[in-house]
Parts: sequence; C-alpha cells; structure tokens
Amino acid sequence: MTEPLSFDVVGIGNALVDVLTHQEEAFLVEHGMTKGSMTLIEPELAEQIYSAMGAGLEMSGGSAANTIAGVASFGGRAAYMGRVHDDTLGAVFAHDLQSIGVHFGSKARPDGPPTGRCMIVVTPDAERTMNTCLGSSAMFCPEDVDAALIRSAKVTYLEGYLFDRPESKDAYWTASEFASAAGNKVALTLSDLFCVERHRADWLELIHDRVDIIFANESEALALWGCDDIETAVERARSDVAIACITRGEKGSLVVNGDEVHEVPAHPVEHLVDTTGAGDLYAAGFLYGYTQDRSLPDCGRLGSVAAAAVLGHYGARPGLSLAQFVDLLD
Amino acid sequence: MTEPLSFDVVGIGNALVDVLTHQEEAFLVEHGMTKGSMTLIEPELAEQIYSAMGAGLEMSGGSAANTIAGVASFGGRAAYMGRVHDDTLGAVFAHDLQSIGVHFGSKARPDGPPTGRCMIVVTPDAERTMNTCLGSSAMFCPEDVDAALIRSAKVTYLEGYLFDRPESKDAYWTASEFASAAGNKVALTLSDLFCVERHRADWLELIHDRVDIIFANESEALALWGCDDIETAVERARSDVAIACITRGEKGSLVVNGDEVHEVPAHPVEHLVDTTGAGDLYAAGFLYGYTQDRSLPDCGRLGSVAAAAVLGHYGARPGLSLAQFVDLLD
Repeated sequence: MTEPLSFDVVGIGNALVDVLTHQEEAFLVEHGMTKGSMTLIEPELAEQIYSAMGAGLEMSGGSAANTIAGVASFGGRAAYMGRVHDDTLGAVFAHDLQSIGVHFGSKARPDGPPTGRCMIVVTPDAERTMNTCLGSSAMFCPEDVDAALIRSAKVTYLEGYLFDRPESKDAYWTASEFASAAGNKVALTLSDLFCVERHRADWLELIHDRVDIIFANESEALALWGCDDIETAVERARSDVAIACITRGEKGSLVVNGDEVHEVPAHPVEHLVDTTGAGDLYAAGFLYGYTQDRSLPDCGRLGSVAAAAVLGHYGARPGLSLAQFVDLLD
Repeated sequence: MTEPLSFDVVGIGNALVDVLTHQEEAFLVEHGMTKGSMTLIEPELAEQIYSAMGAGLEMSGGSAANTIAGVASFGGRAAYMGRVHDDTLGAVFAHDLQSIGVHFGSKARPDGPPTGRCMIVVTPDAERTMNTCLGSSAMFCPEDVDAALIRSAKVTYLEGYLFDRPESKDAYWTASEFASAAGNKVALTLSDLFCVERHRADWLELIHDRVDIIFANESEALALWGCDDIETAVERARSDVAIACITRGEKGSLVVNGDEVHEVPAHPVEHLVDTTGAGDLYAAGFLYGYTQDRSLPDCGRLGSVAAAAVLGHYGARPGLSLAQFVDLLD
C-alpha cells in the first residue's frame, strides 16, 4: 500500500534573481560578451557590468526555478530547493516561488555570500546574454538536499548549471540516489555548452547511472556525446538514457525513447520579444505532461507551447497561467 | 555675466523601489484597499500584503524620480535628491537613475530604516493601487538638501508625497528658498488627495510664497482650493500660482497661466496596460518643454505624449527614449 506522492516535480538549481536590461549589440562587444552565452563572473566584474548597463527590471529567475514556476503555472504540484542568503533578493526569490504555490523550504543562510544574481542583457534581436554572479546559490551541498521532499516527488529535476563544485556534484548524486531508491524519476538539463564541456565525464557517469530524462539543445547533445551529427547523438541517447528531449529552436524538438523518435514542431510565436527561459519552459511543459501520464508526443507539444508563452514577453516566467494552454492539446 | 545652469530639473521625493504585481479585484477587497489610491503602511502590514500577493516585478519607482527619469528620457539634464538606505534596493534605485544619465548624489544611509518600497497592485482594468512602506525615504530633512544642486537647476520639482513629517516640510521650504533666491523656478505636484487633505493649509502657504508651477489632477485641485467645480478651481489657480496644470485623465489637461487657459487633449493610447506613472510622466513632458522654452500648449502636449508612453506598458518609467516623441510636435 503506497500513498500517492505529494509533488509532481521538485527542482534543484542555482537560486538567482534576474536583472534584465535592454542594450544595443555594441554593449556586448564593449564588454567582451558572447551573444547567447551564460558566463560566470566574480563580484567585481558584476559590479562593473551593472554600473555600465541601463536601468534594470528585477525578477526571480534561476533556470530550474523557472521550470518549476512553469510546472506550477500548468497546475502541477511543484517544489524547489536552492540556496539563498538572508537578504532582500533572497526574500524576493522565496516570495515569488511561494506566491505561485511552489513549495520552497530551503532556509535563507545568515552567513556566506549574498543571494546570486544574473544580469541578462536583451539585444534588439531578442537574444539574451547572461552574466551570472552565483553568490550563495553555488554553495549548495549534500546537507541542503531534503530527502523527504525528493521521496515525495514523481520527478527530481536537476539543473546543469549547479553541477560545478565537488559539493554540488555530491549533492546531485545524493538527490538522485534518494529519488531512484524511492522508485521516482530523475531528470537533468544540460543547461549550457560550457557546462557540458567542463564536466562531460562526470555527467556521462551520472546520466548512465541515475538519470531517466535529459533535456539538451542540439549543440549540448553533440558535445555530450562527442559527435558531429544529430543522428549519432540520437543513437547515443537511445543507449544512455530512457528519454532524451533535444530542443532545436524553430525546428522544434526530438523526443527519443528507445526505438521511438518523436519529432515535435515548435509552437508559432507571433512577436518574439526575448528568448530568456524558452528552454526552461520547454522542460516545464514536458515534465508537467509526463507527470500527468501524457503520451511523449503530447509532453513535447506541451513543452513547445510553454516555450512559446515566454518567447512573446519580457522575462523567463509565464505572465499568465499556462493551465489554459493544456486546452490547446485536448 | 551668468553661467548657463547645469541642470534643467532637479527632483526631490520619496526614493522608492516598486514591486508590481497583477491581481484580481477580489485581492483589493480582501485587503481593504481602495482602488486607485496610495496608502502608507507600516512594515508589519507590508509584510502581510507581500506574503499574500503574487510574484512581483521589481523596478525603481518614486513619483518624482519617475518624472526625473522622464525628463532625462526626453534628453533633458536631470538630477534627483532622496533618501535610500545602504542595502540592495537602495543600490538598485541609485543605479537605475544613474544609468539613464540622472545625477543622483544622495549618499546611501548606513543606519535607520531600509530603502522604501511601494507595492503596486495592477488590476485587470489597468488601474493601480499602491501600498507604500516609506522606510528611509521619509527621513528626508533639510540637511539632505544640496544647495549647490538647487541653484544649478532651472526648476526644482517637489513631490507632494514627501511633504509629511515636519523635517521634510522644512526641507521643502529650504529647497524652495534656495531656488527662489537663485532666480530659479519651483514646481510642486500635489501627488494624492490624502496629501492635500492632510496638509492643505501648509501647502497653500508654500504655494503662495514659493511655488511657480503646480501639477494636480481634478480632485486634488478641487480639494486644495475647497471648491466643487473646475471653473472655481481655475479662478483660484490664477490668483495663487503662476502656472497650474490640472490633469483630467482621458479629457486631457488644463494649463492655467494668468488670463490664459489652454485646453490640452490627451494623447490617444492604443492598448491601456497600466496607469502607473501617467501623472508623473505628464509632469516630465511639461517640465522638459518648459525648460526648453516651449509655449505652454506645447508643454502640455509633451505632457500628454509622455503620459501616453507609459499607459501602454507595465511600469512607471518609459521603456524607450521619449526624445523621439518631441518630433511629433515639430
């Protein structure tokens, strides 16, 4: 006799507050930024960039936290773990998750670095370039993993960005072992090309041993499996992981599950404003569908509509409830 | 031989960071809020409201600061004085003004209350209801007035909201005396009906002795001069102040200057999103025109277009440069 689980998805990642600003392309060149990338920066450089950039719009962010906010917006039961400091931005981060019904039990830390922030430069072509000062968020370690929460969620969703310090890698092993032992699923997003290049061997090990679902864009997938074409990546995905979702921008996504490969079209976006969070929301739609026992093509389609919902506005979280989008598929 | 002044407008007001949230009408009822009003609240109640409301979007605000940001956006030379605490929100406030070219010399305070914040509830009809926890901003006193800055600006712009504690009233007298003595102008916005009702006698005295330009909406003007109809208010304005701008929402505004009364139409707004900051931006457009020696009807029209520019988006500061709107009039 087993009780039904309390949560659909619990996410773990870097707890960050986003600072969005509109800048011309020249701003990227001036500060040596690579468009579309995410760069980790030290507090001194963060200060310099912040001084040089225009007025900002602050809102809670963090890749896995955006995904979890998306799951909650669909009506899913969602929870989050991540480190914030006991400061204004930490309080903003906690409030914004709790206010949309996400369970966030992590205690704000009274010591250590301040709450992390991510400066997102949006250029006129709607591309976003991120400079992240991780602060408190990167200090996540095995003691921060809430075993009971992991056991009570159908899926534990791990953000690639956080997989960096030895302590946070340990935390991911700890979390995924709790999930597997309880018979629950582990999902992982590769997050960024630099994450893949930096920790490829460690990741392949974690994926092989513990991960059930991975999310990657095309270049991340090619880098992970060290190949040049998508067909080979799909082949490797088949043998390494139960389900792989490979997102391809306007070309949609591929959902690979053993011998099945589902091609899912992108959902049309009328007016592209900002690409921030599109990948995060794809994962939200997919995982919401997955935890509601939808078919894999349906899960992919929910991913596409969720991504489209944030491509049309400024910021990485949906402005309106995503629950209405479910109707699009029914 | 006089040197040209360094600034067009210097503003003084409550330095606040806005926290915007979308809520249904029921939220206002539940928390006993009067739609469209601004209520001052204590930190405990602020905490309660913040916990109950949805995810927020943080951005720098403050009525006079919004006006000053608008003046800068038109290409005017603008400065601001106001009190912030040495905390994250204080740094955000200073950054956002400085990043758009506004001179902000006020030192962040290491002690006393935290930086003020204003929770703005936007209902589906685009009306905004504000709950403000003033914090550090309300502690503004005569020592915070930078005499050299006042002397170097064509217009000193005073926000009615700050005119509350005896020390801040003294600061307004101090500032307006510096301005008058230098042969510069003093402008005042009445801000809100409750400000007028609370300090009517003190305000009439300040206006009579020191103010050259006032900004008021219709109900504030009627309350100030204790009359029931706009014609009487216009009569009283003629005798009390050199220039009075009375804004009337969709009906536009009246610019009263001695025997002249200019009726200025509102600028059409295609898609009303949020009324936050419309009055602040009207003052920005008017003062920008005034300091460029435009005719009074032109100043009023610049006010109308600046107001329209923020009515169509979320937040109280213009998203794009207002300088382009000047072309509309030429």
